[in-house]
Amino acid sequence: MVEAAPGTSSEQLIVRPIGRIHSPFEEPAGTPVQSSMATGVCGTVEIFPDYEEGLRDLEGFERIWLLYWLHQAPPARLTVIPFLDDRKHGVFATRAPCRPNPLGLSCVKLIEMKGNVLVIEGVDILDNTPLLDIKPYYPRFDVFPVNRSGWFDEVPPGDRLADDRFNRRGPGGT
Amino acid sequence: MVEAAPGTSSEQLIVRPIGRIHSPFEEPAGTPVQSSMATGVCGTVEIFPDYEEGLRDLEGFERIWLLYWLHQAPPARLTVIPFLDDRKHGVFATRAPCRPNPLGLSCVKLIEMKGNVLVIEGVDILDNTPLLDIKPYYPRFDVFPVNRSGWFDEVPPGDRLADDRFNRRGPGGT
Repeated sequence: MVEAAPGTSSEQLIVRPIGRIHSPFEEPAGTPVQSSMATGVCGTVEIFPDYEEGLRDLEGFERIWLLYWLHQAPPARLTVIPFLDDRKHGVFATRAPCRPNPLGLSCVKLIEMKGNVLVIEGVDILDNTPLLDIKPYYPRFDVFPVNRSGWFDEVPPGDRLADDRFNRRGPGGT
Repeated sequence: MVEAAPGTSSEQLIVRPIGRIHSPFEEPAGTPVQSSMATGVCGTVEIFPDYEEGLRDLEGFERIWLLYWLHQAPPARLTVIPFLDDRKHGVFATRAPCRPNPLGLSCVKLIEMKGNVLVIEGVDILDNTPLLDIKPYYPRFDVFPVNRSGWFDEVPPGDRLADDRFNRRGPGGT
């Protein structure tokens, strides 16, 4: 761990991939925006052999959280026009990929575990994404009733696919 | 970004804190195990001024995800006896802190936003924890029905506080 200046944003912390996510999506455009919009889309998670022992008993869970590195994310922006809206919001009020720390979070369905390979469904993740962590999804820990969901409450329902707005100069920009 | 050997666990990726979480808990022992077990426990999130613009419109959300660095986590273990059980499980089938990448995830209630400071409730996080990301909590993205939750299904309900099992040699060990 390198700590250049603790307490400021110049402090550096190091993460290392524990595996790799494989999916049908090679580029952002056309990828489902969220796991809940990717029903039926399957992929696999390959855990590096050094970490396989950490998977013990994971097969009992119907859903799992994947934390991963958004390896194709463009440089961070503090305000963005997200895929689901045509207005600008602070990046922390969105799930857009161009975040100061490009950390992705998806709740996927665990279909099958074969040794160090997990077959998953509900994949909104790009091929070859570096995996950083897996956590079990547990409604008692992860489900909360909410009455307000900010600007999402004003957006019409309907599934969306990503476009290339964050990977080109254009209206998604700052 | 340093990439020592892409595709293996020796690849290194760098994250930088975007802020700091303040809570009543200075050490793991006695800290609520999950946000859902920390009702009424308040804390604050201080966003470093460089990132304040990214908070725009966050105040509309009742709950937010905090992704953070488990700065007091002991070295990683691949199998653990978690706080909620007396049997050993793979670390990725638990929410234990001693993970290969010490990334924490909590869904907290956003009570108030005052400039670059967020007042939060449901705090299961240690004081001075480095914050890495904030994402809005949105039931359509984050709530899924599940029928099976692995070993959690066999554990009696009831709130728990953490003990010091991961910070000493003992039964929580490898």
